[in-house]
Amino acid sequence: MPKKQKPKEISELGEFGLIEHLTKKIKLKNPSTIKGIGDDAAVVKHSGQTIITTDMLVENVHFNLMYTPLKHLGYKSAVVNFSDCYAMNARPEQLTVSMAISNKYCVEDLEDLYEGILLACKIYGVDLVGGDTTTSPGGLVLSLTVLGDLGKNQPVYRSGAKDNDLICVSGDLGAAYIGLQLLEREKEVFKVNPHSQPDFTGLDHLLEKQLKPEARKDVIEFFAQTGIVPTSMIDVSDGLSSEVLHICKNSGVGCSIYEEKIPVADVTARMAREMNLDPTTCALNGGEDYELLFTLPQKDFDKINDIDGISIIGHINPKETGCMLVARDGTLVPLVAQGWNHFGS
Amino acid sequence: MPKKQKPKEISELGEFGLIEHLTKKIKLKNPSTIKGIGDDAAVVKHSGQTIITTDMLVENVHFNLMYTPLKHLGYKSAVVNFSDCYAMNARPEQLTVSMAISNKYCVEDLEDLYEGILLACKIYGVDLVGGDTTTSPGGLVLSLTVLGDLGKNQPVYRSGAKDNDLICVSGDLGAAYIGLQLLEREKEVFKVNPHSQPDFTGLDHLLEKQLKPEARKDVIEFFAQTGIVPTSMIDVSDGLSSEVLHICKNSGVGCSIYEEKIPVADVTARMAREMNLDPTTCALNGGEDYELLFTLPQKDFDKINDIDGISIIGHINPKETGCMLVARDGTLVPLVAQGWNHFGS
Repeated sequence: MPKKQKPKEISELGEFGLIEHLTKKIKLKNPSTIKGIGDDAAVVKHSGQTIITTDMLVENVHFNLMYTPLKHLGYKSAVVNFSDCYAMNARPEQLTVSMAISNKYCVEDLEDLYEGILLACKIYGVDLVGGDTTTSPGGLVLSLTVLGDLGKNQPVYRSGAKDNDLICVSGDLGAAYIGLQLLEREKEVFKVNPHSQPDFTGLDHLLEKQLKPEARKDVIEFFAQTGIVPTSMIDVSDGLSSEVLHICKNSGVGCSIYEEKIPVADVTARMAREMNLDPTTCALNGGEDYELLFTLPQKDFDKINDIDGISIIGHINPKETGCMLVARDGTLVPLVAQGWNHFGS
Repeated sequence: MPKKQKPKEISELGEFGLIEHLTKKIKLKNPSTIKGIGDDAAVVKHSGQTIITTDMLVENVHFNLMYTPLKHLGYKSAVVNFSDCYAMNARPEQLTVSMAISNKYCVEDLEDLYEGILLACKIYGVDLVGGDTTTSPGGLVLSLTVLGDLGKNQPVYRSGAKDNDLICVSGDLGAAYIGLQLLEREKEVFKVNPHSQPDFTGLDHLLEKQLKPEARKDVIEFFAQTGIVPTSMIDVSDGLSSEVLHICKNSGVGCSIYEEKIPVADVTARMAREMNLDPTTCALNGGEDYELLFTLPQKDFDKINDIDGISIIGHINPKETGCMLVARDGTLVPLVAQGWNHFGS
């Protein structure tokens, strides 16, 4: 990762100097932020209940710096936490960033990483209020924590889905997974031929969903405007199948998901087939979509049916019927959680 | 680290299984905890302002498992965050624990780690409400975040110290540093002679301060009972010198610290000399004491002077006089921050 022109060693600044260097431009914007970086702790005062969510990202487990620019990594690290926040129907307001850095990184690398984090903060209206910075004997480890304010909202849990509820999902699924396969494929090509130039023409959607995903702030705002309160909600980080099962398990219900209703972008389907992958399987088990999966009472059908970018993909059933995928040919296939298991062998 | 009797591989449980296994016994106790582990985020509702503080601990940077039992590591990881919370005059109420784990660890190791974390939670009245668990290509990385409730209190910052304020510190300093030196020394002996048995008789205080420190909840409770509100406060994690300088810099003041008033336990001084270390230097630059350093107006002198375990070690001066140590022979020595710089060469 070191840049070409005399990179500045982190040890030149020291821990306090590095933190000051990276955070000096930060301006706190949310009225709920009372005190940001610079004391033993940050102080916040939310108008409603506070939600807290945290994610840890490890080099060569969650990201590969061979094809992930550090700025994108910073952006994505923040956004995936904001996504969890929206999945509770809360507004993310404060972020802490902890990182363990090995000596292969220079100050400029961390500037890039922070640039991405701070860009995400700016776009989503979040204040960076604290963190911790230390050395790592190995690669880079990031741990981000977000505080959100529920304001007048009640939290939307995974556990509120009721029989007959509509199951809806925002955006399209499987693209981030196919984007990752694409990057991995080009990495292997590059290993064999370092002069090769990948041609990603027309594949922006796949790369953006993988490298620079967005959290669905707009969906939460749409709910607020239209008075919609989902009965349950979760963000799609481990694949549709895994998330549907979380909702069903926590709500004590079953479901039918219709394969033909699962939103998969044309480019995702085309590239999946080129790689001998089934597009539906990519949507069900791929993960990292950061779309919102939620359930609504039938009475909200008219409010949601014609909304661009929201798909009704199925409905909740009694528990006894199980959690089923209704395939295109009408056969029933039990949904299985094959989401990302880091610990799998 | 693996235990002797057929350790259980983490991959046998998977990420969700592991989290469920480690957290199934958790009972939420604080009324401020609305929702704990098991959704996209935890939900809390504090009575006053919320404080957030976070720490990242990296194997072979912050801890060495050759002499740190995992249960102690868990306990200490939680307590150092609680300490930051008390340093704001807040009560820690919720904790999240994220960890990256390499495959040299087994399920039983993580049970030990969690046992320590949950013991600290029990003793300090904190609910474990969330976290993230993933694999690490290298060793163990822990990232803990604590939410505290200020209740009716205003936060006590580093920035409120005023001219003539008394500078006070709880407990005694330098012991954790000497404890670390002792453990490092025995580690080297062990490398040469694996059959050697260290004799730590009478040195419990040093080892406990290093391996199983406590946060000064009692000091905060004493403040509440006696109506004391420090003008500034910080916890002593990087050595007295560094912390005094933080307060002076943030408050725009100078200070005099009297060497003879710095509390150093007899056993600390004795062992320091045995290792050819100056006890005062250990207190000033050693770190990891997790005592509270705070300033009080002169009018509070009578409230604090006779309190066992609180030492008045100096006073605040105008900025122009600098930050000085008044040595035993009366000479003035400028205080220098030589706290723990992970990035130092």
